Amino acid sequence: MNVPNNYTGRYNGKVSTSNLNVNGEDFSEFELFELPTPFDDLTPFDDSTSFDESTPRGYPPRDRSMSVTNVNMLMERNKPSHHTTDYDISNLVIRRGQEFMMEVTFSRPLTDSDDFQVEFLIGSNPSASQGSLVAVTFTSRRGGPWPGRVLERRGTTVTLGITPSASAIVGRFRTYVAIVAGRGMQRTRRNSDTDLYLLFNAWCPEDTVFLGNEAERREYVLNDHGVIHQGSLGSVIHRNWVYGQFERGILDACIYILDKSQMPIYDRGNIIKVVRKGSGMVNAQDDKGVLVGNWSNNYSMGRSPTSWTGSIRILLQYANTGTSVSFAQCWVFAGVFNTFLRAIGIPARVITNFNSAHDNTGNLKTDLIFNSDGSPDTRNTRDSIWNYHCWNEVWITRQDLPSQFHGWNVVDSTPQETSDGHYRCGPASVHAIKTGQLCHPYDAGFVFAEVNSDVVFHKRTQFGTLEVTDILKTHIGLALYTKAVGSSGHSDVTHTYKYREGSAEDEATMARAEQYGCERDHSDLPENLLSITLNAEPVMLGQDVSLQVNFHNQGDLNKTVKAHLTASVVFYTGIVAESFKALDFIAQVPANQTKTEVLSIPAEEYFAHLGSQVSLRFVLTGQSDDQSVTAVKLLTLQTPNLNVALDGPRCVGQVMYVTVSFTNELGFRLEKVNLSLAGSGMLSDTDHFYNSIEPLGSITWTVEFYPRLPGERTLFAVMDCENLRQVMGSATVAITA
Amino acid sequence: MNVPNNYTGRYNGKVSTSNLNVNGEDFSEFELFELPTPFDDLTPFDDSTSFDESTPRGYPPRDRSMSVTNVNMLMERNKPSHHTTDYDISNLVIRRGQEFMMEVTFSRPLTDSDDFQVEFLIGSNPSASQGSLVAVTFTSRRGGPWPGRVLERRGTTVTLGITPSASAIVGRFRTYVAIVAGRGMQRTRRNSDTDLYLLFNAWCPEDTVFLGNEAERREYVLNDHGVIHQGSLGSVIHRNWVYGQFERGILDACIYILDKSQMPIYDRGNIIKVVRKGSGMVNAQDDKGVLVGNWSNNYSMGRSPTSWTGSIRILLQYANTGTSVSFAQCWVFAGVFNTFLRAIGIPARVITNFNSAHDNTGNLKTDLIFNSDGSPDTRNTRDSIWNYHCWNEVWITRQDLPSQFHGWNVVDSTPQETSDGHYRCGPASVHAIKTGQLCHPYDAGFVFAEVNSDVVFHKRTQFGTLEVTDILKTHIGLALYTKAVGSSGHSDVTHTYKYREGSAEDEATMARAEQYGCERDHSDLPENLLSITLNAEPVMLGQDVSLQVNFHNQGDLNKTVKAHLTASVVFYTGIVAESFKALDFIAQVPANQTKTEVLSIPAEEYFAHLGSQVSLRFVLTGQSDDQSVTAVKLLTLQTPNLNVALDGPRCVGQVMYVTVSFTNELGFRLEKVNLSLAGSGMLSDTDHFYNSIEPLGSITWTVEFYPRLPGERTLFAVMDCENLRQVMGSATVAITA
Repeated sequence: MNVPNNYTGRYNGKVSTSNLNVNGEDFSEFELFELPTPFDDLTPFDDSTSFDESTPRGYPPRDRSMSVTNVNMLMERNKPSHHTTDYDISNLVIRRGQEFMMEVTFSRPLTDSDDFQVEFLIGSNPSASQGSLVAVTFTSRRGGPWPGRVLERRGTTVTLGITPSASAIVGRFRTYVAIVAGRGMQRTRRNSDTDLYLLFNAWCPEDTVFLGNEAERREYVLNDHGVIHQGSLGSVIHRNWVYGQFERGILDACIYILDKSQMPIYDRGNIIKVVRKGSGMVNAQDDKGVLVGNWSNNYSMGRSPTSWTGSIRILLQYANTGTSVSFAQCWVFAGVFNTFLRAIGIPARVITNFNSAHDNTGNLKTDLIFNSDGSPDTRNTRDSIWNYHCWNEVWITRQDLPSQFHGWNVVDSTPQETSDGHYRCGPASVHAIKTGQLCHPYDAGFVFAEVNSDVVFHKRTQFGTLEVTDILKTHIGLALYTKAVGSSGHSDVTHTYKYREGSAEDEATMARAEQYGCERDHSDLPENLLSITLNAEPVMLGQDVSLQVNFHNQGDLNKTVKAHLTASVVFYTGIVAESFKALDFIAQVPANQTKTEVLSIPAEEYFAHLGSQVSLRFVLTGQSDDQSVTAVKLLTLQTPNLNVALDGPRCVGQVMYVTVSFTNELGFRLEKVNLSLAGSGMLSDTDHFYNSIEPLGSITWTVEFYPRLPGERTLFAVMDCENLRQVMGSATVAITA
Repeated sequence: MNVPNNYTGRYNGKVSTSNLNVNGEDFSEFELFELPTPFDDLTPFDDSTSFDESTPRGYPPRDRSMSVTNVNMLMERNKPSHHTTDYDISNLVIRRGQEFMMEVTFSRPLTDSDDFQVEFLIGSNPSASQGSLVAVTFTSRRGGPWPGRVLERRGTTVTLGITPSASAIVGRFRTYVAIVAGRGMQRTRRNSDTDLYLLFNAWCPEDTVFLGNEAERREYVLNDHGVIHQGSLGSVIHRNWVYGQFERGILDACIYILDKSQMPIYDRGNIIKVVRKGSGMVNAQDDKGVLVGNWSNNYSMGRSPTSWTGSIRILLQYANTGTSVSFAQCWVFAGVFNTFLRAIGIPARVITNFNSAHDNTGNLKTDLIFNSDGSPDTRNTRDSIWNYHCWNEVWITRQDLPSQFHGWNVVDSTPQETSDGHYRCGPASVHAIKTGQLCHPYDAGFVFAEVNSDVVFHKRTQFGTLEVTDILKTHIGLALYTKAVGSSGHSDVTHTYKYREGSAEDEATMARAEQYGCERDHSDLPENLLSITLNAEPVMLGQDVSLQVNFHNQGDLNKTVKAHLTASVVFYTGIVAESFKALDFIAQVPANQTKTEVLSIPAEEYFAHLGSQVSLRFVLTGQSDDQSVTAVKLLTLQTPNLNVALDGPRCVGQVMYVTVSFTNELGFRLEKVNLSLAGSGMLSDTDHFYNSIEPLGSITWTVEFYPRLPGERTLFAVMDCENLRQVMGSATVAITA
């Protein structure tokens, strides 16, 4: 419905939803005071003045002796103290809650009777009551909420210190200087050079994103390169990701995202609303956001999710075209969201949850349904277990919640499920998840299920009813990883999400979650005297897989187990791409013993079914006369690496060379190969295309570049083609200033 | 974005979002068991059977001796105990968590070896793991979650008792009886006569809508007529509203609303999701819901909000056309939402909040901005105060929250502000609002502000900055009314939303709210030695208004007050339709005295500006040498009544007559007059149109009808035309069975 006229009786005006002033000019250059009222003693009425009725825009001041001749935002002095030096941007970038300096030069030295104010405006119809128009005063005359002081007077120039409030709106402000001149105010003209970007401030104790530890701030706000974990727990893939939050155009792109979302300007100082809105906008679903999700094998209408080196190209393309970028899967959503968050000053990191439950019905049961022959019943199975899932954490003060929920909060921009009607998720306090306090916003229950669901195996009986045959309580949320602070290694943060399985605290957490409506399965299963475990050593793609099946019989009776193995190539979402093997066999397991069978899966059995996937899943169901047991094993095949070598003087601004090389030892031809290379502060995203790489063929590609920023920097290369993805390489180098 | 193919790797199938089975048939009539596995001892493999390979849909059973010949849902026996007698519907309507009976007749008497089950299905792809396929068994064989028992066997007929679980999906289920017959199951064909409607159950202690008090259940679930309060506190209008939840087609229309919302079937047993979804669907905003809001004076594209007698016509039109109905304002949204809630069994009532703050920025300040001459600055004022606002309360167990939040919860379907991206509001616990515990979902902060905001008066200075001049702490949420249980009077429920202003508990509540981020204004104002109050006696529309202005001077110095009065016709949303008077005057107020000025506003001053509004608002700002004070008075003009008279025997099914009459004593001609009449269980909505009614002209309209339901019943008539709205009348009568 679009019936604006129906709302005549509802609203006084439109809400501003853009950093720009879409209405045009902010002020006329000279603004006449309203006629003062008799008791208004601030500006005594001067009845000797004759009005010039011929000037429609306002009456010029009698005293034209003073004007502003220059405004200097003191970029080089402000940027280091605000930790914004790396932003490749021609305007001042500062953080809120912290003083910055600016110099104003007047046409003559100031006297004590001179009065002026500096005004910061954002959006259309800026308004003092909504924080989008802030007047800063430097006398006893009361101004807005940002304190101002004169730091120095030198001739006609004054140096001002201005402290944006720690809860100020974040975005791009327009700056004006207004001189109180006789009957009105004389203002500087609009000058975009004096616009300033105001960010969240992790260094400011009053800011809702305050983070006390400097090493953590350097990692979570200032590091523009990272590592995202993929694969499965026994065979983790470390994927580099170029966040690039300081690169040219990225901060503007991030503000563009909020403008595109039509988020009211006055909400943009509120950390909770900003991160929630961001989690919705990074996916294209329902709001024309940044990235289009695609979990098929067909990426012909865009780039494959595996082919991106980082966020830069994605954000620039979105901001330049205004249309969503194709295509993404969870790590791409998380990587781009991380850039957005760090760019506007919010401490953020990417988390990977191995064996992530994706529950469709909002309970703590991941229901896997099997036919009576032991094969998976995919038609009736709705829930799935993702091999891994990536989301983000932000370090924030939850002003809306009791204080124990401050700190890391989950936000997730992958469009998994709608949260309250939109594809978005969080912020959900990690502490709330650990303690099962799911009675607070937002989406804590959904994240709780992702890390804590029980896997419930059901057998469909011939009557159409379901029988619970087995429950795995430790399969989901096996581990949660993030990049370590200050190194490229991983940090295991599982303990921040969960107490030790089976501990008293863990039981209290689960009980609390149930009390808040998270249903669990308490089926009364017979004591598990029989159990199965599956093992497989990591192998390279193209090698034979050896699957070890261990039947453990803890009972005092020999068992005959009828076993059914299903082997499938799966998407990382746990959905079957293709099943390539089904096998029935009988195992005799003596009392109190473990019987091991080794099943060999030759490469040719799975190879033709891989497509571009690299994950195999083995599901084994075993049935003895009195018991049904199930085991699941995921194996991520390893892919070859790219070789990345650097040459040159390793200094800012001096030419360097990077060479990417690769030899195809896979035994099949790679076709339509795209090679991408990027590195924050080093090299813009750049691509090279090869029609094909024959078996045992080699490629070598050299690119020239000029480092922009000093410090330890990484170049990251990705090779991607339809029949082989996830081929990567990187090189790290220390660049001197 | 609509790119379903992108999700191949994400989902196994579509989620069911409709009560219907959009895929067609549920079952084939005979379903063959899957081949039993060797250890499956339930149905020993019978290898003597020869398969008939020519039958593609299944193999017929050898034993065709038994079949189901009749299924009887025992309407007359079930309805009274389930409190569903009044539903004018040909299917069985029952409430969950409570046993109902059905009779199944077989082709021969049952023997002990016979096995059968009754199956209840809802939506497409019904599934046992999601509660949308429930198999009820009557032997030791395990079925689904609904217990079944055989109550009686008589010849070939068995009477069954079945208890839907207290958390079952609410909606229309399809019923099947399946006989286990040799190699498979033989089912009854689909028969819509045996469909059953399952509702929430306020009588069941295990249900999340359990309400212990029978008088309250009769009012909040079973009463199909109500009263909604409008106007302003000194001049409250009691508007009748025909809820009509039992009328033909209404329950289907309510289920249609949920189907139209595409709410997943498996969520429809969850009270929190259902009421939240309902609050979004009753308005047309962003989801093509039931009612289009319109706060203009132009209703030419539909019916004016004031012209409806109740919900019936609206819901039937929506369900029949599938398009949103024009037009509504808050009481219409609340009235229709109340019907929806009661129809599906949820205890619900309509609440009116007098002086309801509508804050745009999510804080506890309703910011009213004035120019320096004392006149309202409507351009910069974003917040508004609605004369009254109507919402609903539902009585529910908040499974998602600690137990103190169970009970009445606010839900609001008027599209005031988006809640987390959609136009909807709640459920917000009334207890959470009373105690300031705003850290729980949903929208408690918004409702808290509606009843607790401070009115902050700002003066815009000549420098563009704002100065706080006055704060009114008791103006907002002056009182909250609902219809009393068992009578047509009102019940004041203000104390359930707030502690006494200024009490220690109230201060604790406000402190808690601030701790959760609700910003208040703590401006340091000079001690208020001067204050103003405004009074006006209620008058009929067309009569002169006498406005009493009292200046109270509690100081020891005489004061000269410069006063500015602005008088406006306002929408009930507090937005100015037209200002008709501005007046400046000086009052001399002696020390420690009250000075009263009486301003007379002749009818001709406001009359031409009324349009169809009936509310006048007076804003008086006074300025002494050291203080600024402001007072606001709202006056709702009274409108004439319709005369409604009844004639006839007052028995169910016997003809009666109702006569509506009216004489125009207003002194102006009424044009294009619509007269509407309705009454639950008495009379369908019916209209009569008059081209004009001249001054002192009379109309009389008689309608014949046959009462359908016994008990105390009300007929309600509304007259509506462009230059006069809110003319109403009603008659209540006891109908015997």
